[in-house]
Amino acid sequence: MDTLLSIATHLWPTVTPVPSKLWALTATEVLSPIKEDRFTVEDYAKSLLTRIESRNGLVKAWQYLDRDLVMKEARALDKVPRDQRGPLHGVAIAIKDIMDTKDMPTEYGSSLYSGNRPNADASLVAIFRRARALIVGKTTTTEFIVLNSGPDTTNPHNPERTPGGSSAGSAAAVADFQVPLSFGTQTGGSVIRPASYTGTYAMKPTFNVISGGGIKVASLEFDTIGYFARTLDDLKLITGVLSVMTEEPVEEIPLKETKVGFVKSPFWPSAGPGTIAAMQKAAEILRSHGVTVEEVEFPDEFNDATTLDRMFKIVFVTNGGVSFYNDYLMDTTKTNLDPDVRAFVEGAPKYPREQVRQALDYYMALRPVFDGLAPNYSVLITPSATDEAPLGLGDMGSLCFNSVWTAAHMPVIHVPAFAGPNDMPVGLSLIARRYCDQYLLNITRILSEPLMREGIGSRNWITQKLNYHWILERKSTIGHTY
Amino acid sequence: MDTLLSIATHLWPTVTPVPSKLWALTATEVLSPIKEDRFTVEDYAKSLLTRIESRNGLVKAWQYLDRDLVMKEARALDKVPRDQRGPLHGVAIAIKDIMDTKDMPTEYGSSLYSGNRPNADASLVAIFRRARALIVGKTTTTEFIVLNSGPDTTNPHNPERTPGGSSAGSAAAVADFQVPLSFGTQTGGSVIRPASYTGTYAMKPTFNVISGGGIKVASLEFDTIGYFARTLDDLKLITGVLSVMTEEPVEEIPLKETKVGFVKSPFWPSAGPGTIAAMQKAAEILRSHGVTVEEVEFPDEFNDATTLDRMFKIVFVTNGGVSFYNDYLMDTTKTNLDPDVRAFVEGAPKYPREQVRQALDYYMALRPVFDGLAPNYSVLITPSATDEAPLGLGDMGSLCFNSVWTAAHMPVIHVPAFAGPNDMPVGLSLIARRYCDQYLLNITRILSEPLMREGIGSRNWITQKLNYHWILERKSTIGHTY
Repeated sequence: MDTLLSIATHLWPTVTPVPSKLWALTATEVLSPIKEDRFTVEDYAKSLLTRIESRNGLVKAWQYLDRDLVMKEARALDKVPRDQRGPLHGVAIAIKDIMDTKDMPTEYGSSLYSGNRPNADASLVAIFRRARALIVGKTTTTEFIVLNSGPDTTNPHNPERTPGGSSAGSAAAVADFQVPLSFGTQTGGSVIRPASYTGTYAMKPTFNVISGGGIKVASLEFDTIGYFARTLDDLKLITGVLSVMTEEPVEEIPLKETKVGFVKSPFWPSAGPGTIAAMQKAAEILRSHGVTVEEVEFPDEFNDATTLDRMFKIVFVTNGGVSFYNDYLMDTTKTNLDPDVRAFVEGAPKYPREQVRQALDYYMALRPVFDGLAPNYSVLITPSATDEAPLGLGDMGSLCFNSVWTAAHMPVIHVPAFAGPNDMPVGLSLIARRYCDQYLLNITRILSEPLMREGIGSRNWITQKLNYHWILERKSTIGHTY
Repeated sequence: MDTLLSIATHLWPTVTPVPSKLWALTATEVLSPIKEDRFTVEDYAKSLLTRIESRNGLVKAWQYLDRDLVMKEARALDKVPRDQRGPLHGVAIAIKDIMDTKDMPTEYGSSLYSGNRPNADASLVAIFRRARALIVGKTTTTEFIVLNSGPDTTNPHNPERTPGGSSAGSAAAVADFQVPLSFGTQTGGSVIRPASYTGTYAMKPTFNVISGGGIKVASLEFDTIGYFARTLDDLKLITGVLSVMTEEPVEEIPLKETKVGFVKSPFWPSAGPGTIAAMQKAAEILRSHGVTVEEVEFPDEFNDATTLDRMFKIVFVTNGGVSFYNDYLMDTTKTNLDPDVRAFVEGAPKYPREQVRQALDYYMALRPVFDGLAPNYSVLITPSATDEAPLGLGDMGSLCFNSVWTAAHMPVIHVPAFAGPNDMPVGLSLIARRYCDQYLLNITRILSEPLMREGIGSRNWITQKLNYHWILERKSTIGHTY
């Protein structure tokens, strides 16, 4: 391995300043050297597994990980002739354990499915396997995606704090450099919020631009697939492989010609000091670069937090009652499902049907209205979470700043640009209109550059918490990995 | 078997006038005698298999049927102690071959999935298996539910005519007395239209009141599970087992106090003589019983057939492009998928995203508007198909009278009350507002009684085509089985 790595260092000096730490590379960074045999997938996998082994006792991001299977798959990838290598050849990825995998158990966070082994991959897992990605393992999730506690996964930046749910393990694994990429899903805020708590980038694209085939459903009308990465380039890489349908070609916009709408939302009273400071600081940084910053109110008819919450809950419970009905019947002893999951099936019929119709129509009416807000600005910016990750693992935090955008089906990218008073990550959500996913990636690249540089630079929490001086040193060479 | 049947005849004289033909019983009719050991599931299964064998060469409704498996399952059901029998104990049901079954192949109508064997049941299959139904086999479907031809299934009333698609086999098997119940799905009109062509009852409940887990998706936003039966009681039976959430308790409404809205729709110019006559005759029959009959127009903003079609197609293709993307990549030789299926993936990105948003918003705006029409009437009545089943198997007919109601997410019941100029079945759709599924079953029972009696009586097509004199004779005893 030493020889290989010294070759890699020689051939690839600008992007591998710390070649002994292959696990720290982003997906985009490992692509070329693997494709060109500068190091093997086996070497890369070994490095990742070493990292995972050293951190797993603390972070506990994995629901299932079979070292031997990972090494076997890695060696198989190395044997693929160069001209048959895929667009993600050898890139490591983690899969939230509500997505079926044909070679690993899939337990949906529930003891009801203990040891469950589907014999087919979920649609997106199949796409990544065909792209020759290395499927490392299954990450922890809350039961059926809907509970607000469950896994003992910790926040890599502070084991006394939650990584957020329900995509807990996927966020923690990427934040902790155990894999460069992972998949999650968001019914309310289960991708963007854990990304904020753990300090990763994440993207929740437009609703239903990625097939949910083979993925456990909670709410058919809200569930959206999302992904975590440590760079925007990596989010873009995933988006491309999934062939998320694009808006017309995106033009370059000079930073100072952009106009950003800051949306505090009717949930602003829930914002804590970290989030308040992040919104203020972001506006300052952008203004200092000539960006036009305006405050945007929620449209009047949707500007009431209580109504937004109540309507969301009615759709969520009604949908969940349908999705979990078979599981409910399956749990004949009533000992496997959490009472809060059973409550979906038992509670759903209690809403008068008139309220259900109203709630569905409320969010259907909201979609074009919120969508219509976006084109007035280059992008909308809103909090990703109420504050830093809460203390303890029993409360995975509030989804209040996320659920409206999920229900609106609009694409959201989380930018981990700030830290809170306890030196824990805090980030912001950048939002575009539906089907402008590629546009959103581009405008986020333009705006996040000053935000990441001047936001994180102000606290330096990564160096304090994880002692990754070398990562900061790389910034000038390879862009904003952090 | 003779002994058993003579016992059955003795104990159960009013509902089994033709005991040598157990296959002809409805689901509701087999429930009690099986539960009470008046005949065995094995006897019942044998009878069904005899019927299937005698008709399969002509009708070809089955994609997969394993006699030995059926008999094994039937014997296993007979061994279940009486106090552990399920609510559907021994009732035979057919499953459209886009729904996963753990003990049978599931091919989604595509050679790409030839021999595909999921190891878990789709959610609704699991619910029916747990209710101790007898899963007889998998019925034919068009490729991925979206093509308009494919299976060689024929219409039981005339083998030169299509049974309609995509739920071709499920409709044909029930119409032909090969099973009393079957499941289908409808993206545009794939349940209601084949029900009309084959003369069965069918129900497409409100969108997303039954979990689609383990079922191939075409359009996430339109696909709705539905079911076929030969009586309304059987539709009600299925609805109950699936625990479709109900409106508040339904009151009895005397027939002459009902008010029916007849909806010709902007697609009326497509109606052929059978459909035109059925709508006229239905209005006459109902009026003659004191029912108030009014014509209802589509609301102005949605009263254009071209726009309705175009918007439907944009959502359908956009959704299909997402749903089939993995299959598209899987078909590396480009020889397995039909070019019309490939066209979803290739065509979806060609719509400007602005058109996609418009189309989604168009149908989201339509839902509350159409829903708001319904409460002005006891029920809405509209054509189920343009006319009788077309000649030949290459054109499975038009969905124009169905797709708006599918996209509107409203529940629809097909009533097979009429016949066309070629003595082929023609029926009508009864429609209520969303989540009024139980209400719709009840009002349909009230209104279909005179429609079935005076509609079918006028042509007697069943006696002509299938020579089931004995079935007509049963009508006075057990209600409108036909």
